[in-house]
Amino acid sequence: MRFLHRDFDVPSVKMIVSALLTSVGINFGLCILFFTLYSVLRKQPGNYDVFIPRLLADGMSHQRTGFNLERLLPTPGWVRRAWKPSEEELLASSGLDAVVFMRIVIFCLRVFCGAGIIGVFVLLPVNCSGNQLENVDFANLTNDSLDVFSISNVNNGSKRLWIHFTAIYIVTVFVCYLLYYEYGYITSKRVAYFYSSKPQPHQFTILVHSIPVSAGISVSDTVESFFTEFHPSTYLSHMVIRRTNKLQNLISDMKKQYERLIRLRTESNQPKFEHDGCCGLFRHKVNLVDQYEKKLEDLEENLRLGQSEVSLAGEEVRAAFVSFKSRYGAAIALHMQQSNNPTQWVTEQAPEPRDVYWPFFSSTFMGRWISKLVVIFAYFDLTVLFLIPVVFVQGLANLAQLEVWFPALESILSLSFVSEIVTGYLPSLILLIFIRLVPPVMRFLSTFQGYICTSEIEKSACEKVLWFTIWNIFFGNVLSGSVLNQISVLLEPKNIPATLAVTVPAQASFFIAYVVTSGWTSISTELFRLIPFIWSLMRKPCLKSPDDEFEVPGLPYHKDIPRLLFFGLLGITYFFLAPLILPFLLIYFCLAYIIYRNQLINVYEPKYETAGQFWPTVHNSMIFSLLLMHAIALGIFTLKKVSLASTLLVPLPILTLLFNAYCRKRFLPIFVAYSTEALLNKDREDHNDPTMAEFFNQLETAYQDPALLPIQFSTNSDSHSAPLLASAEIRDSERISDQSQ
Amino acid sequence: MRFLHRDFDVPSVKMIVSALLTSVGINFGLCILFFTLYSVLRKQPGNYDVFIPRLLADGMSHQRTGFNLERLLPTPGWVRRAWKPSEEELLASSGLDAVVFMRIVIFCLRVFCGAGIIGVFVLLPVNCSGNQLENVDFANLTNDSLDVFSISNVNNGSKRLWIHFTAIYIVTVFVCYLLYYEYGYITSKRVAYFYSSKPQPHQFTILVHSIPVSAGISVSDTVESFFTEFHPSTYLSHMVIRRTNKLQNLISDMKKQYERLIRLRTESNQPKFEHDGCCGLFRHKVNLVDQYEKKLEDLEENLRLGQSEVSLAGEEVRAAFVSFKSRYGAAIALHMQQSNNPTQWVTEQAPEPRDVYWPFFSSTFMGRWISKLVVIFAYFDLTVLFLIPVVFVQGLANLAQLEVWFPALESILSLSFVSEIVTGYLPSLILLIFIRLVPPVMRFLSTFQGYICTSEIEKSACEKVLWFTIWNIFFGNVLSGSVLNQISVLLEPKNIPATLAVTVPAQASFFIAYVVTSGWTSISTELFRLIPFIWSLMRKPCLKSPDDEFEVPGLPYHKDIPRLLFFGLLGITYFFLAPLILPFLLIYFCLAYIIYRNQLINVYEPKYETAGQFWPTVHNSMIFSLLLMHAIALGIFTLKKVSLASTLLVPLPILTLLFNAYCRKRFLPIFVAYSTEALLNKDREDHNDPTMAEFFNQLETAYQDPALLPIQFSTNSDSHSAPLLASAEIRDSERISDQSQ
Repeated sequence: MRFLHRDFDVPSVKMIVSALLTSVGINFGLCILFFTLYSVLRKQPGNYDVFIPRLLADGMSHQRTGFNLERLLPTPGWVRRAWKPSEEELLASSGLDAVVFMRIVIFCLRVFCGAGIIGVFVLLPVNCSGNQLENVDFANLTNDSLDVFSISNVNNGSKRLWIHFTAIYIVTVFVCYLLYYEYGYITSKRVAYFYSSKPQPHQFTILVHSIPVSAGISVSDTVESFFTEFHPSTYLSHMVIRRTNKLQNLISDMKKQYERLIRLRTESNQPKFEHDGCCGLFRHKVNLVDQYEKKLEDLEENLRLGQSEVSLAGEEVRAAFVSFKSRYGAAIALHMQQSNNPTQWVTEQAPEPRDVYWPFFSSTFMGRWISKLVVIFAYFDLTVLFLIPVVFVQGLANLAQLEVWFPALESILSLSFVSEIVTGYLPSLILLIFIRLVPPVMRFLSTFQGYICTSEIEKSACEKVLWFTIWNIFFGNVLSGSVLNQISVLLEPKNIPATLAVTVPAQASFFIAYVVTSGWTSISTELFRLIPFIWSLMRKPCLKSPDDEFEVPGLPYHKDIPRLLFFGLLGITYFFLAPLILPFLLIYFCLAYIIYRNQLINVYEPKYETAGQFWPTVHNSMIFSLLLMHAIALGIFTLKKVSLASTLLVPLPILTLLFNAYCRKRFLPIFVAYSTEALLNKDREDHNDPTMAEFFNQLETAYQDPALLPIQFSTNSDSHSAPLLASAEIRDSERISDQSQ
Repeated sequence: MRFLHRDFDVPSVKMIVSALLTSVGINFGLCILFFTLYSVLRKQPGNYDVFIPRLLADGMSHQRTGFNLERLLPTPGWVRRAWKPSEEELLASSGLDAVVFMRIVIFCLRVFCGAGIIGVFVLLPVNCSGNQLENVDFANLTNDSLDVFSISNVNNGSKRLWIHFTAIYIVTVFVCYLLYYEYGYITSKRVAYFYSSKPQPHQFTILVHSIPVSAGISVSDTVESFFTEFHPSTYLSHMVIRRTNKLQNLISDMKKQYERLIRLRTESNQPKFEHDGCCGLFRHKVNLVDQYEKKLEDLEENLRLGQSEVSLAGEEVRAAFVSFKSRYGAAIALHMQQSNNPTQWVTEQAPEPRDVYWPFFSSTFMGRWISKLVVIFAYFDLTVLFLIPVVFVQGLANLAQLEVWFPALESILSLSFVSEIVTGYLPSLILLIFIRLVPPVMRFLSTFQGYICTSEIEKSACEKVLWFTIWNIFFGNVLSGSVLNQISVLLEPKNIPATLAVTVPAQASFFIAYVVTSGWTSISTELFRLIPFIWSLMRKPCLKSPDDEFEVPGLPYHKDIPRLLFFGLLGITYFFLAPLILPFLLIYFCLAYIIYRNQLINVYEPKYETAGQFWPTVHNSMIFSLLLMHAIALGIFTLKKVSLASTLLVPLPILTLLFNAYCRKRFLPIFVAYSTEALLNKDREDHNDPTMAEFFNQLETAYQDPALLPIQFSTNSDSHSAPLLASAEIRDSERISDQSQ
């Protein structure tokens, strides 16, 4: 990796073909290794919580615990099982968001199949047949630069560049057609999903914030009187949000206490059976257990007191969930401006109860606006200045410094082989660690932006990570040089195509290597779940019971979607510059298809359902990729002295933008709101449903803050083998969402 | 005027003070002349239709037709009468739009009073005390350049530039405060206007277009079934729009025929009394009258046939006005997306019946979208390329060419005095004519953009004219050089401040002269109504009857608002560069205040009521002016080598943008839609109103196409002295709007 090889005048990194082949070989080997290890390790019951937590939680993997030889052999059965489920089955088990995620992979596969055929069978031979680059020796190809396969090798002013021109038009039309088709497909899925859904609390509820309060009147009364006055026929109930930070702290204390207690019990129970004699130690532990139980009971009492206090006289946030008797009623209240002052009684769609992000509720209009501005500012700074601390840390962690810090290693570091690896890989490793930190940091930023639910936070983080990646990895490498240099290029829009035309092709071999190293490796570590696996290995000695509490993770969309989209961007921008990238990308997306299907079935559980709201981000990213490709092509054709082609290319970005504008009008509104038609049809369906009365009863408490719900840590002695943390919130939300699926 | 003095290297046009004084003298004289002429001519009954058409139409000016000496003396009584009415009276007589228009003038007066005090008493002395410009001879000031009074004269790196820096901060805060105050004031006026309004058809109606139709089912039935299904409790009635182009042509034919008939009758009646003998001629005319009457009757018969044909089986446009039983019901249908396909059943607010622009109804979603794109493209081209045809025509109309075209003038043109005037003023005159053409052309463009009402057309034309003026008059002069030169400056955003800092101060004396010549003259011709006056003089011989048909004009907002805003922009950008401009601007706005009040009382009648929707355009224009001023200041401080001031100025545009963003959130939604609160309160007021039943009856036919209403041209012989064209549409809309005021 040469992220930081930032000499502006180096026009091209001559990566020799043999180096690429080596890299492909190493990474291919790594993939095979990971796959083999995975297919063996996933069959060991001890690793079920890492590799198939979802199946484990569903109780579907208890049957085959018996030992047999097959358990130790690598088998490709998982590939078949991942391949099998139809899209409907995936939809039923993992929700529409997972389907949309898989559609991104399918979309990219289609695009790069089409572009790949054109690129490999048409453009590649054309590129090779040129002789713009000197010293090409086909007999000894392995020693030659990869640039022979790129557009740089086509002669200036050559008529063959018109083939590239045609290819650009064809691929743009093809991508736009696919985008239109996918947008339409996902739209229809979204509407169908809504039509087929059972009544769900968030369909009947809105969140109102910036509620104006007069002195002496509580927020609750204000809400009640406002909605009974202006929505008398549809208003059902409301739930004012209260500050529960203290209770949340109390609950997390209790959880810790409880876990400690459980561990103690396990430890004190096991010696009872095995070494019945060590009485002193045993009695001590039993005493400790009693002590902890007492403490836990005290905490529970505290919590109960705190809860009743908060419920009765806690600090009310000027925000409330307001439920209505019909979906249409809720939608009307959502879409109409409620008050003459648009900064009061601001409404937004309520999230699913399980999706609500309770800790952070900034309630005033100005508060939310300012926090949003601050986050945007922080994000902007972080994105632009990201590489500065990275370079600084890399500068610190050089060979000499390491020898100072770890004198013991001196003898090893003096070996030239080791020192080469350290100097060669340490900077990359540091960069990689920093890049790994980006998605969590962006997610953290988004939580402060005033979003009320996890899905919105992840959607916003997804966009943040995407643009961060494009800026720091694509532009950071292409426009090498300082940050100011990068920005100054953008400040002269006129010169962008010319600059890109010089710098982008020069990085072709780097990005081909990037697809192979970062892409292939990331996807196989995704399968192998490297970090959770290591974590589980470290944690295992502490937790004796195999059925011990473990959490089924949700797919981290904000981390994985930007990665897929970034490879899409690389493919689209480089398809005519260096078609050699396309086969590697195709392999990447094929692996992604199988592996993500496998993970969705075995590992990830849907944590929320946005019903496809990630797609507009995908669409925008693809449109941006096309425009970037057009800008580069414009510059290239000018540089290659085919200015007629340059001129004829100008309509293409304009048409692409018009296409995008049309799609925004045709499809985007469906992702913002459901139509009167859909809402009323669903409402009428419910009229004859006898379970609706019960549903409305549950709806009234669906948005209760979990910190205010009674939490029972059972203190029976036989409790440690059953799931112990049974919060009413979890039961409640599950009951409702069960009913609704 | 030196619009076309486009040598890029001329840094400054040294307008000598004496020349400015001459210009002020001439234009002051012209103003006095126009005022005097106006105060005499407006008292002549023959000119009532030019100077007080509104009073004439209201029948308020028939009392004083008797001749007296006072009629021939110039009196300033009209100033007092224009000064007198309070804002409430203006609101009652001319509507909220007129009040908003006057608020623009008041806002500018306040801004330039504040900025003027700082500019004239603080900045001007500072500028004069510098000696950056050489050869300053205060003893002989009249021969000196006006630049002595501008910031150019302050020494480079001088500490006194911090006074300018402070002034920029103070004026920005002052303008923002006034903008906030005015936005709030107009918002409250808008809400109050809504609360005090009687029920009006457009409050209960929406326009639905892009209605999907199945084969065999009429649009009317589709609308009926859709709204009875999805809005059963609030739907009242609908009126499908039909293509009536042919009927409209027929009606305009009839009008022409009718006018010819009236003229003939007048002519044939008058000879009857005066020269009773000329029998041959008289009989011929009587025959002609009979013939025309016959033809008119035929046309009426044709129209009736055509109308019944169109009503029964005419081509239906896929658009309809849909009326509801309550304002809230209409608002719900307006704000909710109706269909699952967002490009079908598109809703928009219905305009007032009198405001509907019938001729152009593009109905399909794609049709409207494409026509909008085409108009935007045409507007962009027109704006950017405007000066090319102007220069071309100016090139044609030179002295030699004139001598070829008009050989008779050769002797006159050879006089050096005449030739100087021709060469000096002809290019300016041509430019002026072209500029006069801009508002009607922009209005014409806007009609094709798919707007359904005159008010929307004028609002859109207003913005078009504004940006056209800023681009072609401000930037066209400042960034002198070719069009490409102008655009290339914009394509390098980094260099904008530096370029503006060099070029804008250089044009200070030109723009001071521009305020005096173009500003003062335009406002006094506005008072004198030069073109209508000349037109009326030319037409008078043809029309004998004094009470003959004349139209009361509406204030052309799309022409006058951009002019006021452009002078606002000049004032804000130049206040610290050349404070000398401020007194002249203050005089302009004082004149505008009196004259527009006078015209609103005497001349213009409200043709529609947008309830203040022009204000957001004004606000945006002022924010743009502030940002432009900041950019220039940034460049100036860098140029003057006070780079610390430059740096400290950077937060100012950012804060201004944030202020603007806040205003958009706080006020703009109120200009887009009324709130649930307001709508429901108004609806509840009506519940006990006994006249509502009648109102709903009228509502059902309020949006009938006027071309489909019965039109009666009475054929009685005594009819020519009474208003003859009595179309049901006019009666109908008047009845409803009378009721609603």
